[in-house]
Amino acid sequence: MSFHIEYPRTLPLQRPGDFQPGAPKFHARWDSAVTTLVCDYIAVQRDRDDLTSENNFFERLQRDFDSEFGPDCAERMRMVDEAGKTNSIIVAYWTDPSRYAFWKFTAAFNAWLQSAEREAEDVGYWRETLVVPYDRLETIYSEPEYRVGLNRTKGCNIEPMYTAGYFGAMRDRLPISAVDGLNSPYETSLPKGAFEDGLRKRIRVDIPHNLVSIRSGQYWQKAEGEQLADYYENLQPKLEVGMSYIKDNPLTTGCLSLRAMVNLDQEGNELRETSKHGYFISLAFLERWASSHKSHLDIFKHALAMRRKYGAERSVVTWHEVFVLGSSPSFEYVNCHAETGLLKYANLWGSAPIAR
Amino acid sequence: MSFHIEYPRTLPLQRPGDFQPGAPKFHARWDSAVTTLVCDYIAVQRDRDDLTSENNFFERLQRDFDSEFGPDCAERMRMVDEAGKTNSIIVAYWTDPSRYAFWKFTAAFNAWLQSAEREAEDVGYWRETLVVPYDRLETIYSEPEYRVGLNRTKGCNIEPMYTAGYFGAMRDRLPISAVDGLNSPYETSLPKGAFEDGLRKRIRVDIPHNLVSIRSGQYWQKAEGEQLADYYENLQPKLEVGMSYIKDNPLTTGCLSLRAMVNLDQEGNELRETSKHGYFISLAFLERWASSHKSHLDIFKHALAMRRKYGAERSVVTWHEVFVLGSSPSFEYVNCHAETGLLKYANLWGSAPIAR
Repeated sequence: MSFHIEYPRTLPLQRPGDFQPGAPKFHARWDSAVTTLVCDYIAVQRDRDDLTSENNFFERLQRDFDSEFGPDCAERMRMVDEAGKTNSIIVAYWTDPSRYAFWKFTAAFNAWLQSAEREAEDVGYWRETLVVPYDRLETIYSEPEYRVGLNRTKGCNIEPMYTAGYFGAMRDRLPISAVDGLNSPYETSLPKGAFEDGLRKRIRVDIPHNLVSIRSGQYWQKAEGEQLADYYENLQPKLEVGMSYIKDNPLTTGCLSLRAMVNLDQEGNELRETSKHGYFISLAFLERWASSHKSHLDIFKHALAMRRKYGAERSVVTWHEVFVLGSSPSFEYVNCHAETGLLKYANLWGSAPIAR
Repeated sequence: MSFHIEYPRTLPLQRPGDFQPGAPKFHARWDSAVTTLVCDYIAVQRDRDDLTSENNFFERLQRDFDSEFGPDCAERMRMVDEAGKTNSIIVAYWTDPSRYAFWKFTAAFNAWLQSAEREAEDVGYWRETLVVPYDRLETIYSEPEYRVGLNRTKGCNIEPMYTAGYFGAMRDRLPISAVDGLNSPYETSLPKGAFEDGLRKRIRVDIPHNLVSIRSGQYWQKAEGEQLADYYENLQPKLEVGMSYIKDNPLTTGCLSLRAMVNLDQEGNELRETSKHGYFISLAFLERWASSHKSHLDIFKHALAMRRKYGAERSVVTWHEVFVLGSSPSFEYVNCHAETGLLKYANLWGSAPIAR
């Protein structure tokens, strides 16, 4: 039997009555106990044509990943940001926080990234390390076969589940939601990011309690014909409308940062595999958008309709992994422009290293 | 039934064979789920005769504790440190990390402490906030009645337990030890604290993974006659020898900081109630001292002998609460001398706020 935690419930389920979805969705479960998962986003921020920086960065990290304490799995991705910079990103997952600590301490990459020399380079670097207790994560996959993100970690299986198909299911899938409302102190007064001084500097940003990280993905590598056409003509445009709305309306959506990333193969070619990574000030904000705004309802309904139409032949996979963050390490930005990740919130939660 | 978590074990118990102690010890358990506990040490560092600063500090905090989001319980303490300064300390406990986050955000005390004005005062301030997932804490009390530390939180009961009386019991009582060795990256190369620049500054120090916090206490308020005399003539001197050894031999004991604190009543009078609060680089170091060094064996044997001698009439209580820290907020030191807490490790793990 796979590992799972359930708390004696003090808060109500969101599930309406005895609702059951017509078909299962799928989620990640592990063979043995995972107390805390570490998800490390590390990136180089560069000019579009500077592929050398990307190659060097990926190779440097890969060398150190191939060590005793390296991650269970990692993905290479790319995204173009608000300032027109290209960010080459690695996301790596560890299911053992002590092993991660050893890796951070022993791998040459980390000392290299900590060096003051990085602050004087022509490129920027950033690192957003998410430390996620098991009770603060949930996953959903539309199909049972596709391996991506944390479901590629050791001992992880994809299992069918029925906590899906209604608004509030995301919350119900988080074990901690049985006893914790996961509210943000900023619920009624969104923070104002005003920091603009990241160039040539190394800035740490502490994240607020119960910040939500969502990585929401799309995989159509195996889609052909009608389903492939439907992806490009219907699902992808609807996703883009949703993403634009979220980014353009942070006061309504509670979104602090949103990145549209594409996965790369080992040679740097872009795959038919994308994901959006967003930070929301609270789960309640994310739920409000998901349950009430047309842009999400359009995505949601289209995905369900296609699943009904094609059944097990469905070749487009959608999925997400959600973390509601408690105490996590500071995010770190080195020589980055102000629109990078949560850097602009450094006026509220920022600090800089003292020892050089 | 009280709340508890157990993981399917992948690492062996320390308990030798089927060893059972002759009598139970006691531990803290809660009526409902506690996912994470917050233990906040907050202090003013002052000259010995400056009681005004102590009074003002305690009163300012107490005003804000009496709020909707205030702590479950708090204690006032005092200690004289290595530099001859007196530290007036409040330790406060929350069993709900979201409530703590709301308190931190809304209580005037926290904005006051964050103000740059604090850095220019004649006194110093420090704050060491410990965020402790349930699976990373364990407690032991020699008697079932005495309420102190986290066992004064809401819904907490003291229950008998039998994971005691052998070396390694501390580890066995930590739920996470079933699946995590709790090693420190610094196991074989202790960190060197060399920072000396804390005055007039605000310095944050990130703590290393699996750092151990132990608060080990003594309560003899109700002791009389023979037991009172034995406390002063035997147990207290043995404790002092042990504490001195730990402080004087950090390379052997892995101790980064050790404070001998005395509890105060609301008028500032010292009680017959003390505790030592130490940070150790790893549980393995703490275990090595406890299981092998004469100074701890002397304390351990004497406490057991007195319990045997007096049975239920034993009026001296000893206890501890141990946290093995994962991801925790940065410790913070404002205008403090270099020997304060973990401040001297700021050369390795330190940062300073940027936004003023």
